[in-house]
Amino acid sequence: MSLELKSSSKSFGGEQRIYAHASAETKTAMRFGLYLPPGEGPFPALFWLSGLTCTEENFIAKAGAQRLAAALGLVIVAPDTSPRGPDVPDDPDGAYDFGLGAGFYVDAAEAPWSAHYRMRSYVEKELYALVLSEFPVAEGRVGIFGHSMGGHGALTMALRDPARFRSVSAFAPIASPMNCPWGRKALAGYLGADESRWREYDACALIEDGARVADMLVDQGTADPFLEEQLKPALLVKACAAAGQPLALRRQEGYDHSYYFIASFVDDHLRWHHERLTA
Amino acid sequence: MSLELKSSSKSFGGEQRIYAHASAETKTAMRFGLYLPPGEGPFPALFWLSGLTCTEENFIAKAGAQRLAAALGLVIVAPDTSPRGPDVPDDPDGAYDFGLGAGFYVDAAEAPWSAHYRMRSYVEKELYALVLSEFPVAEGRVGIFGHSMGGHGALTMALRDPARFRSVSAFAPIASPMNCPWGRKALAGYLGADESRWREYDACALIEDGARVADMLVDQGTADPFLEEQLKPALLVKACAAAGQPLALRRQEGYDHSYYFIASFVDDHLRWHHERLTA
Repeated sequence: MSLELKSSSKSFGGEQRIYAHASAETKTAMRFGLYLPPGEGPFPALFWLSGLTCTEENFIAKAGAQRLAAALGLVIVAPDTSPRGPDVPDDPDGAYDFGLGAGFYVDAAEAPWSAHYRMRSYVEKELYALVLSEFPVAEGRVGIFGHSMGGHGALTMALRDPARFRSVSAFAPIASPMNCPWGRKALAGYLGADESRWREYDACALIEDGARVADMLVDQGTADPFLEEQLKPALLVKACAAAGQPLALRRQEGYDHSYYFIASFVDDHLRWHHERLTA
Repeated sequence: MSLELKSSSKSFGGEQRIYAHASAETKTAMRFGLYLPPGEGPFPALFWLSGLTCTEENFIAKAGAQRLAAALGLVIVAPDTSPRGPDVPDDPDGAYDFGLGAGFYVDAAEAPWSAHYRMRSYVEKELYALVLSEFPVAEGRVGIFGHSMGGHGALTMALRDPARFRSVSAFAPIASPMNCPWGRKALAGYLGADESRWREYDACALIEDGARVADMLVDQGTADPFLEEQLKPALLVKACAAAGQPLALRRQEGYDHSYYFIASFVDDHLRWHHERLTA
């Protein structure tokens, strides 16, 4: 797991870095962004999971999170959204919603995807362990957040193991992949037709099946073009209400699905996590 | 000069928009970003000029300026860096430092560039008038700033007409295009061999020739890879000192040439301009 530093730029007194390393899970080179705030640490850390078509660069270039991360003393880890490389298969039609840039944070069970598409174990196990061993991150003080496909990833990872990710939030998450076109295509493709195997990758199904986190913050723009067909926050509201799962869902009037929306509220999310990770 | 709204995203309570219009100066379609803060206005406005290879999108996506622009009530206008289109000639070798994405904010005098490369008049006259007529901008309360090639553009435009642009700042500007490879290539190409015609496009030469602004803020990273060969802030320090031109040059230890550098200090620049434009 030797790390190669690909770039480093001073940012708000800290360092915005991009690393590459050979992943044992995906059997490819993987890249991730890491913001290291000024000071000595150990720091609380946040994992950020990006949405469809993104790489490790979108969040670090566009979200504007470094300013407050520097002030609060937060490490932010931003992995790529899928394995990449000459051996990694892509959607046969080159669609943006499956294959490269669209790993959906699952461990694929179906050939040919299962050889490399292991973004769940990559993030939860390999990258998590790497970050804790190689950087000044405080043991146990790690949270997770993300956007769209990555909001789904963040919610499901926290619900499956709230001791690993002790705080969770999301921007415009895919609330229930089992119940939208993006999610059904991805879960069928990566996991196969047996929908009982999909439930551990669906935040609403996990909650129905008994998973819980202490609380969750979700921001959703009301002008998001994917709101009705793909994101369906009402399903999350319903699942949380039925299960007694605390949920702070904020409908943000007039905001769309872009990084302009994320940037507008990222400070609230950083404070949400910081409060919980330093309590 | 009819405006076409290409996109609009809500951002910090305001709107980050991209417009296109047919430019009489460049005889092409031109695009610009415009941040409109929340509220009624009229607002002070800032023109942002980007560096080599950039379009109207770089600053608006990466600088993180909208947060404080919303709080202060500032309009920010971010034009493209050159004309573009099927009729617009590019560097014959496709180099990044001349032609498309590299208009250097001059009115070209040499063929074939003179037909379209009129970024000076486009920004100073056409876009300036358009913004004042079409948006809630306070007459006379307009400043200018920029990065690298755009820092050069901002300094020279303010020095030539400090009543038009009443406040000025720059990130890592090309301090003297007449004295660096990027600048000499551009000025020779666009203006021809007579160097006396270059002086109105060189901040140091303008100051030597008597141009003045009330003050100027310049941030320059000490780890900028272009510092020694291209940017040469020492030439600006020398010209300002010899002329009694006030200059606040801040050498920012360890910062490079990227938008991570710009984002780290953009709030200081917005406050600098806001103070001067609302005094």
